[in-house]
Amino acid sequence: MAEAVRHDKTARQLRLLSDALDSGRLGPVRRLVNTLAPAEIGNLLESLPPGKREIVWGLVDPEDDGEVLVHVGDEVRESLLADMDPDEIIAAVEDLDIDDLADLVEDLPDTVIDEVLKSMDRENRERLEQVLSYPEDSAGRLMNPDVVTVRADVNVDVVLRYLRLRGELPDHTDHLFVVSRRHQYLGRVSLASLVTHEDTTPINRLIDDEQPAIDVGESDEEVARQFSDHDWVSAPVVDDNNILLGRITIDDVVDIIRAQAEHQALGAAGLDEEEDLFSPIRRAVRGRVVWLGINLCTAFLAASVIGQFELTLEKIVALAVLMPIVAGVGGNAAVQVLTLMVRGLALGQVGASNARILLWKESRVALINGVLIGSLVGMIAYFWFHSFLLSVVITLALIINFCAAALAGVLLPLLLKRMNVDPAVAGTVVVTAVTDVIGFFSFLGLATLILLN
Amino acid sequence: MAEAVRHDKTARQLRLLSDALDSGRLGPVRRLVNTLAPAEIGNLLESLPPGKREIVWGLVDPEDDGEVLVHVGDEVRESLLADMDPDEIIAAVEDLDIDDLADLVEDLPDTVIDEVLKSMDRENRERLEQVLSYPEDSAGRLMNPDVVTVRADVNVDVVLRYLRLRGELPDHTDHLFVVSRRHQYLGRVSLASLVTHEDTTPINRLIDDEQPAIDVGESDEEVARQFSDHDWVSAPVVDDNNILLGRITIDDVVDIIRAQAEHQALGAAGLDEEEDLFSPIRRAVRGRVVWLGINLCTAFLAASVIGQFELTLEKIVALAVLMPIVAGVGGNAAVQVLTLMVRGLALGQVGASNARILLWKESRVALINGVLIGSLVGMIAYFWFHSFLLSVVITLALIINFCAAALAGVLLPLLLKRMNVDPAVAGTVVVTAVTDVIGFFSFLGLATLILLN
Repeated sequence: MAEAVRHDKTARQLRLLSDALDSGRLGPVRRLVNTLAPAEIGNLLESLPPGKREIVWGLVDPEDDGEVLVHVGDEVRESLLADMDPDEIIAAVEDLDIDDLADLVEDLPDTVIDEVLKSMDRENRERLEQVLSYPEDSAGRLMNPDVVTVRADVNVDVVLRYLRLRGELPDHTDHLFVVSRRHQYLGRVSLASLVTHEDTTPINRLIDDEQPAIDVGESDEEVARQFSDHDWVSAPVVDDNNILLGRITIDDVVDIIRAQAEHQALGAAGLDEEEDLFSPIRRAVRGRVVWLGINLCTAFLAASVIGQFELTLEKIVALAVLMPIVAGVGGNAAVQVLTLMVRGLALGQVGASNARILLWKESRVALINGVLIGSLVGMIAYFWFHSFLLSVVITLALIINFCAAALAGVLLPLLLKRMNVDPAVAGTVVVTAVTDVIGFFSFLGLATLILLN
Repeated sequence: MAEAVRHDKTARQLRLLSDALDSGRLGPVRRLVNTLAPAEIGNLLESLPPGKREIVWGLVDPEDDGEVLVHVGDEVRESLLADMDPDEIIAAVEDLDIDDLADLVEDLPDTVIDEVLKSMDRENRERLEQVLSYPEDSAGRLMNPDVVTVRADVNVDVVLRYLRLRGELPDHTDHLFVVSRRHQYLGRVSLASLVTHEDTTPINRLIDDEQPAIDVGESDEEVARQFSDHDWVSAPVVDDNNILLGRITIDDVVDIIRAQAEHQALGAAGLDEEEDLFSPIRRAVRGRVVWLGINLCTAFLAASVIGQFELTLEKIVALAVLMPIVAGVGGNAAVQVLTLMVRGLALGQVGASNARILLWKESRVALINGVLIGSLVGMIAYFWFHSFLLSVVITLALIINFCAAALAGVLLPLLLKRMNVDPAVAGTVVVTAVTDVIGFFSFLGLATLILLN
């Protein structure tokens, strides 16, 4: 329901826009587009098929171009950049914050990068080069070097006078950072404390030095965790010598959290999170066929297990009818356990210290569910094929497969993690391969033992 | 890799804690626990099995109890509350912000709720009752009525004097809200502009009246979208008459975004997002068996399709070996399309205006992938079973099933959405039911037509 509201609002804009585009009246389209925030325009452009996307992109206020480019996925960004000439690109990106520019710069044509660098003053160019020197997905890449610093040995009135002289503050400045003469990070002072204390209060009485600074090499996911655990709006970034390098703000953290969620959802289906709704066919095919190939291998593995029992299947064709049930429901049970484990691993809640307890718990759940679902399926099979032994076979096979599902669901994600493979991406293929193989093997194997004698 | 870092850090704490717990030395455990932020303690408690959880909970600084309760899932919260006596609960929750208290209050025993209400002053009690009067998942539930307001017709120095008199500001106050005499919302003034402008500047020159206020009835997902599209830290909440009621802050929005992602990931496996790693067995069984039952129905549907072809299967047992491949790979293709659609729907990027174009694009991708994968499988089948016609049958069946996967992947989520069923939860079951049925039917049907004549 809640999602429907958002959907309705954006979908309504989309419909209005689409109608206006179809009617060829670009005036209303331009007005509509330019009431939106850059992130909303980005979202809209992603929802348009290539032809319409280009038309709308041409109508966006050039002042917003840079921010819009920051807010779209790589594929759409490429297609938008392809529509711009170098001067337009330079004009669009030169006013961006350093961290946004760093995010964008690698998608720009080389000649444009040179021009952009030339158009910047030396200080900003050096800052950009510094940010680019850190690995992607690290705190260094997320930080903006534009920070407001103060000294500890002054009073509130000195700071206020300095700020008035300085004028505008960078976006999301909720704290000023206190540094030593050598630019070492000492602590932070909130704007809230500046405006609630008397002019004569010394800054060192207002310092909060409890918040640890973020190390420039920290991973972006660790940064996101700290922000959400501590409810920060901004945080200082320092190097190994505690020298203040920059500042990370909550808006970037929100983007990381969203990207993580996307990565998990799309990765589980073997999709690249940059895949665009209207990716060119060739790209979409290439992006998906690898994953389908991997799944095909596991399907052939399962088929080869069935192949071992051709003689049994020839004699009792009911087995062929029922065998997908054993494999399929076992797969569902395994994915449930896997999903809980993947969440636990992502939150750091699962480790060597509690894996055994989890395994024990999940085995008991599996046994109960196996007996419940297995008996139900056994009964239905009995009424369908009128064979008591067949219904015993399928019940036993399901109980075995549920237990295999619990084992695979708990242990395989731990194993994948240790092998540095993301269990959120590879988990489903691997655990369902196990439940397919065990499902077919236990069902057909038990049938061969029990029914053919 | 990035995730591993986080995992390592929390897992290390967990291991240390676990070792200390096992050794029975509670002193180190207490020290370790109380260096953590409340959200981190919550995360830790969720990772502990019930026995250890209770011990650690007893060691948490009572001052943090309330914040920790806010930061754990419903199931764990219940188990923690069960360990506290009414006085402890009252002491823990009475200093919480109104929005956090509203979040918690429904999990408290009735007698405790009465005591908590009695211990509050009248103003706060009325505020709590107001917040509780709005539906869950609405802006009204998220807001904190504790806001700092100013009037437009004063100068900066008057506001600064007022703030110094007032003392501390609520957390995440980055803007003051400007209201009329009748408490109508007029706009906002940032702390940044207060500290960068001269004392004599009139507030009405600093007002930003471009940011629309949030309507108290808006859904929490719409609130989250607006925050992340506009990069807000806090936003005003108003009623239908534009009267300022409270304020929503970014920390709550981050929680919503995380909860949305969890809901999608867990919902797709038929799990309740409140399911705890160490849920009691009975609860875990109950939570999962319904989903397994639903999947069982679709499995029997697929089995009944196979049942129509018993005669064919009796004659050509190779069909039984190969049929899970057709159904399985088709299911994978469908889930890929579904996943892209679910993301597009959640972002509002998919609607009636572009559904047809998407269907056309996905059909072409499916046809190409179907031909590629189908031919590959056909070749392997030929080398395995030495039947040219069999390999033609499986190739054709795969092409048909890939096209069915594209149709189901694009159309079913739109249909589910229109029926007010969340496609992120129900989508996978429904589309794989389609590819199972079409896969078995087309493969066995074509085999009957082509191979048995």
